[in-house]
Amino acid sequence: VLDELRNAVGADHVLTDPDVVAGYVIDWTGRFRGATPAVVRPAGVDEVARVLQICAAARVPVVPQGGNTGLVGGSVPQHGEVVLSLRRLDRLGPVDAAAAQVTAGAGVTLGRLQEHAHAAGWEYGVDLGARDTATVGGTVATNAGGVHVLRYGSTRHQVVGVQAVFADGSVIDRLDGLEKDNTGYDLGGLLCGSEGTLAVVTAARLRLVPRPRHVVVALLAFDDVDDALAAVGALRRAVDALRALEFFEQRGVDLVRAQMHVPPPFPEDHGAYVLAEAAGGTDPTEALADAVDRLARVRDVAVATDARAAAPLWQYREAHSEAINLIGPPHKLDVTLPADRLAPFFTRIRGTVAAVAPDAQVWLFGHAGDGNVHVNVTGVEPDDERVTDVVLRFVAELHGSISAEHGVGVAKRQWLHLTRSPAELQAFRAIKDALDPAGILNPNVLLP
Amino acid sequence: VLDELRNAVGADHVLTDPDVVAGYVIDWTGRFRGATPAVVRPAGVDEVARVLQICAAARVPVVPQGGNTGLVGGSVPQHGEVVLSLRRLDRLGPVDAAAAQVTAGAGVTLGRLQEHAHAAGWEYGVDLGARDTATVGGTVATNAGGVHVLRYGSTRHQVVGVQAVFADGSVIDRLDGLEKDNTGYDLGGLLCGSEGTLAVVTAARLRLVPRPRHVVVALLAFDDVDDALAAVGALRRAVDALRALEFFEQRGVDLVRAQMHVPPPFPEDHGAYVLAEAAGGTDPTEALADAVDRLARVRDVAVATDARAAAPLWQYREAHSEAINLIGPPHKLDVTLPADRLAPFFTRIRGTVAAVAPDAQVWLFGHAGDGNVHVNVTGVEPDDERVTDVVLRFVAELHGSISAEHGVGVAKRQWLHLTRSPAELQAFRAIKDALDPAGILNPNVLLP
Repeated sequence: VLDELRNAVGADHVLTDPDVVAGYVIDWTGRFRGATPAVVRPAGVDEVARVLQICAAARVPVVPQGGNTGLVGGSVPQHGEVVLSLRRLDRLGPVDAAAAQVTAGAGVTLGRLQEHAHAAGWEYGVDLGARDTATVGGTVATNAGGVHVLRYGSTRHQVVGVQAVFADGSVIDRLDGLEKDNTGYDLGGLLCGSEGTLAVVTAARLRLVPRPRHVVVALLAFDDVDDALAAVGALRRAVDALRALEFFEQRGVDLVRAQMHVPPPFPEDHGAYVLAEAAGGTDPTEALADAVDRLARVRDVAVATDARAAAPLWQYREAHSEAINLIGPPHKLDVTLPADRLAPFFTRIRGTVAAVAPDAQVWLFGHAGDGNVHVNVTGVEPDDERVTDVVLRFVAELHGSISAEHGVGVAKRQWLHLTRSPAELQAFRAIKDALDPAGILNPNVLLP
Repeated sequence: VLDELRNAVGADHVLTDPDVVAGYVIDWTGRFRGATPAVVRPAGVDEVARVLQICAAARVPVVPQGGNTGLVGGSVPQHGEVVLSLRRLDRLGPVDAAAAQVTAGAGVTLGRLQEHAHAAGWEYGVDLGARDTATVGGTVATNAGGVHVLRYGSTRHQVVGVQAVFADGSVIDRLDGLEKDNTGYDLGGLLCGSEGTLAVVTAARLRLVPRPRHVVVALLAFDDVDDALAAVGALRRAVDALRALEFFEQRGVDLVRAQMHVPPPFPEDHGAYVLAEAAGGTDPTEALADAVDRLARVRDVAVATDARAAAPLWQYREAHSEAINLIGPPHKLDVTLPADRLAPFFTRIRGTVAAVAPDAQVWLFGHAGDGNVHVNVTGVEPDDERVTDVVLRFVAELHGSISAEHGVGVAKRQWLHLTRSPAELQAFRAIKDALDPAGILNPNVLLP
């Protein structure tokens, strides 16, 4: 098989030296480790097809890998799979202004894509912290979210079409940029979030949005979580230019202040904070200011109408992960609650964790506009299953999702049944068996 | 089987009288006719499940039906199928302002949903001419588009989750409104546009958008199609509040004027028209006016900043179908072209049609922002296959879609191979067989 793979992609691109493959068999958090007989680095869709044909014929399982920035072990060869690295598929097409679209290879990083779009006066709607390493292919495979989901939706909403290779080596190619195309099942959408289990995405045709000429950020302080959450609903309806609605607490601000050595946002402490960002071709400052004025229970407000003033406000939210890592490493859980269950979740989650880990500290922050809470727990092992178990069960009880934007991978597979019914799991399995009958595509992730 | 069905939904809701079922076995255009042993009208998801169990056990094929407003025969029992009418599933939940969502039964009409959203200060992003008859279930099954796709996307983009019944009677229920939920394959998105072949959608959780406080409409006149299309791209980038970008020609305006007895839009005739609508919480008039000022080749402009003034401008576009019907009935073809292929399509389509139907008249109008052209041909039979064939082959040659928003149904099934590769058709078939192994769900539509 190795010889055939070398024939397919060139000997230089079948890596077997343990030192060289080391970076491909462990995730960036160090939590998931594996081993691989080879890392294969094809240069294009035809080589990907050939690699999959060879592996399918030999029944050798394959783990597709992009930037390897995932948090649930979805791209690590934990059972000795061949690693199929897509990083060489890094072609980036011209921005198509008439269609507001661009075609990007699976290996293009989000950062490069964003720069490319900016240079032409456009923006890509998905942005996230790992932008300089995370790839288009990886973000499609995991349906990546980020801070702008509220306005533009997740990666699935950006994908007009994909080029992808099925397990048998057959290729689908839907890169013509057809915004409307009701001729059959939405294979591109199905592949989004399928975590490399149904096909290998080699390129995507992506929507762009006009680069906003005006961005305004407001940091709002409230006495408590209830008041902050009430503001989230009111702001959503009043300000259609909103593109981020982030949430964090005073204890998070205190930690960021202590670890990052930054001044406090306001003279007094408050219970909870909402960071709202509005952006558009028309200046949204007045609409946002009017909406904030109408909030009965806001205690303090800081507004920034340029990027220099906005950065320190965003830092209170964005530095959460780094500040927590400095006292960590944390146990990271990424969940969604229905909008009307966020309040009970915030009220009871610390007690829930304390029941199994009395000394743990729980840090709560996230994308309030989507009900997406990043639950970080310090003072326990990063993979403490008791903590995982009680948090995810509580989420399930409140009809939430056990993985908002990080996916299932291997990390959450055993809890999938908490929120996915037998009928759903059976449908997942039927689809998996239909599109990958030999079961060679990332066979150890996602499905139980 | 009829007795079992009567047991499941009540004798009053199993219709067999030919006079009573007449309205269920023919589409509204009269082009597609069929016959049915029974129209079954369940009252809720449990009854739908029971009906499908009965039909699956007896291997009786079923055609799900909503408002029966489709244009491709997808909800007509042309092979003697049982008709499963979802109209009684018409429950409409309260607007959830915190989540900006609402839950609607499959039988709720778009018009009722829109009124309900408006009353709470919100709007549903999909709107179309058949709004008072078309249902939520039907629009999900066909991934309906309409005039606002440019801004909000098609129905698939509005669906947060669905409740649906598989062919074996098993039920999935994802109505909790989780904006972010990366735990498995996107079954809801897969059912969107599946034309009733994979499962029966019984309810949907739908996104809402803030009801815009300001709507501005501009009708722009150009010398020719090329100038009009150049304006489409420029306006998209300059005005992020755009929610409609419609296209039509002078001959369409002339027909609307003659049939509807309305005055001309401008003192002089022009070659092509673009109707742009911008809407938002912040007044987009200035942004739209600035963008129009920068268009080099616009010949005349009419602007409306209130609904009363906008209606006559919209009428030139919206009355196209009615005016054409008055000289018709037309052969209606609904296609998409990539943005950069619209110009060659417009230039050559009349010659293409003339090659098989020299006396035909070709009317071109549609949603320019999405590349979606409604090709209406008069002077031929409405189902003239030579015309269908040359138009769809030309679309395929230009890498377009043979069905933008109307679906495949029975009408376009034989041409699906023009734009869907063997690999795609094989994947469709594998998914169909995986989720409906007995093949009882709308077995005669969509797939070859």
